[in-house]
Amino acid sequence: MINHKNLKVLVFGAGAIGSYFGGRLAQSGNAEVAVVCRSDYEHVKTNGYQINSIKNDFHFMPSGVYRNAADYPGTPDLLIVATKVLPDSDIAGLIAPAVGEHTVLMLIQNGLGMEEEMQTAFPDHEIFGAIAYIGVCKTGRGVIEHQGGGKIQIGRFPEGSSPILDILTESWLKTGVECRQSNDIIKDRWAKLVWNAPYNPISILAGGLDTGKICADPQLDELCAAVMNEVCVVAKACGKELPATIIQDNLNYTHNFPPYKTSMLVDYENSRPLEVEAILGSIVRRASEKKVAVPHLRTIYALLKSVNLNHCHPIKT
Amino acid sequence: MINHKNLKVLVFGAGAIGSYFGGRLAQSGNAEVAVVCRSDYEHVKTNGYQINSIKNDFHFMPSGVYRNAADYPGTPDLLIVATKVLPDSDIAGLIAPAVGEHTVLMLIQNGLGMEEEMQTAFPDHEIFGAIAYIGVCKTGRGVIEHQGGGKIQIGRFPEGSSPILDILTESWLKTGVECRQSNDIIKDRWAKLVWNAPYNPISILAGGLDTGKICADPQLDELCAAVMNEVCVVAKACGKELPATIIQDNLNYTHNFPPYKTSMLVDYENSRPLEVEAILGSIVRRASEKKVAVPHLRTIYALLKSVNLNHCHPIKT
Repeated sequence: MINHKNLKVLVFGAGAIGSYFGGRLAQSGNAEVAVVCRSDYEHVKTNGYQINSIKNDFHFMPSGVYRNAADYPGTPDLLIVATKVLPDSDIAGLIAPAVGEHTVLMLIQNGLGMEEEMQTAFPDHEIFGAIAYIGVCKTGRGVIEHQGGGKIQIGRFPEGSSPILDILTESWLKTGVECRQSNDIIKDRWAKLVWNAPYNPISILAGGLDTGKICADPQLDELCAAVMNEVCVVAKACGKELPATIIQDNLNYTHNFPPYKTSMLVDYENSRPLEVEAILGSIVRRASEKKVAVPHLRTIYALLKSVNLNHCHPIKT
Repeated sequence: MINHKNLKVLVFGAGAIGSYFGGRLAQSGNAEVAVVCRSDYEHVKTNGYQINSIKNDFHFMPSGVYRNAADYPGTPDLLIVATKVLPDSDIAGLIAPAVGEHTVLMLIQNGLGMEEEMQTAFPDHEIFGAIAYIGVCKTGRGVIEHQGGGKIQIGRFPEGSSPILDILTESWLKTGVECRQSNDIIKDRWAKLVWNAPYNPISILAGGLDTGKICADPQLDELCAAVMNEVCVVAKACGKELPATIIQDNLNYTHNFPPYKTSMLVDYENSRPLEVEAILGSIVRRASEKKVAVPHLRTIYALLKSVNLNHCHPIKT
């Protein structure tokens, strides 16, 4: 039986997303939250994280800081994966040493197919998907800036409920994180791709534009709508029919939101690898399987893949 | 009656293309070739052009060098326009002062629609179109490097023959320029766009790649073929059916040619304005008129237009 007041949590990949949501969980008092972090290990071990948030700033001192999952003593109730989704990174292999018999896995990531992969690696474990709607970035060692948004949607894969989901929801809500449970987390992943698939790549390919500039260019705005439409068509072919209004809603939302630099553009400007496969490749491959034509997606996918290959560096370990 | 041995020619826009083909014409001994050039005026007036060519280097001292067409004494038999095709540049207005009653106009340019525009401005004048297949660039004041190719295709617009075309053909052939007359110069413009429409934009959008790198990337290679196919479909809708083999021929040619940096990429790297409208806009607009779907072209057009707007500077006058 999980102790409501002492959920043991390990966050794997404690960058901006992982440390923010892990930190909020710790702040709730309902969980002991440890982290596996690589590049900032020494700093975080000594100082923890300083999180400057539009909601309320806070300090997050993890209950443990480790270089590798294997260093975690015992096994967590919940292991949160909050890494970027990049090819050739064997997340399942890296977390395996910390995964106990009853450890639940939660993926706060972008893209498609991560739950299925994790299920294959850990067929007897409970798996949650999570989608973050937040503007958050790391600005220095152990320093996180939370600039906007802050919602998180969580759900059991492929469906169902779980007492841990209830604890998480209650804990996040308590600390001001707008947390919603989802009955179809994969459908929600598709819905998020409706925004991510156009704006992230186009912000780079159109010459380094924030969302305000993309929206202000009628041709790029039209291109965003065309890409969104293709995402919806592929989603439907995969059995996830999105609401008819989703395209116009996403366009309106982005037009009315303050100009925003996409996370992919930030990665590009810092020569970091881009989530090309998670955001575009995953959709284009499903389109091929379902024999759906996605010419706009294919065009930006081919271009962005090349940009990533030629300008972005492998992640530093 | 035109004097075969003394064709009076004025080249308007004597950059790399204009000075190379104008210089070869002068070299033939059949023509007196003057130039209107802006940025290098002082240098060229004193020193002429040094043309370093894979065929044979030569020096070209124009018979006159002018800042403006109005400074040309009298009127030429042939006025060659060899500027880039950019919106908002009123070429007809700029050349008008030098256009006499019998002056023939020749456009050595990329894109579509220049002949029609020129015909509207000068309805009673004979108009020639010309398409250059050459790798040539300016490397310094009055210094031109001719690195590859060197063909030129010339034809009366919209059709027909002319004694001047024969003089030009003979003169260029005499100096080693592979010159061919065309019975349908507009169809030839479409054929050249089959190459230009994919490789020029993609060389920039895919992250600054030469043709070798584009060909070596299977997805970009496929994208090039898809763009070529759309160009052919629009050409056909406009009454210019291109040979069925043209796509494979262009792909083969580019695969077998030494890696080549497109002229558009060179312009981009030098922050010069790009011929976005001539190369892509002209096709996309015709596709709209003919109700032909061109999703690949629309995607790269929207992206490149934005890149041009945000990164390339107005031409210096």
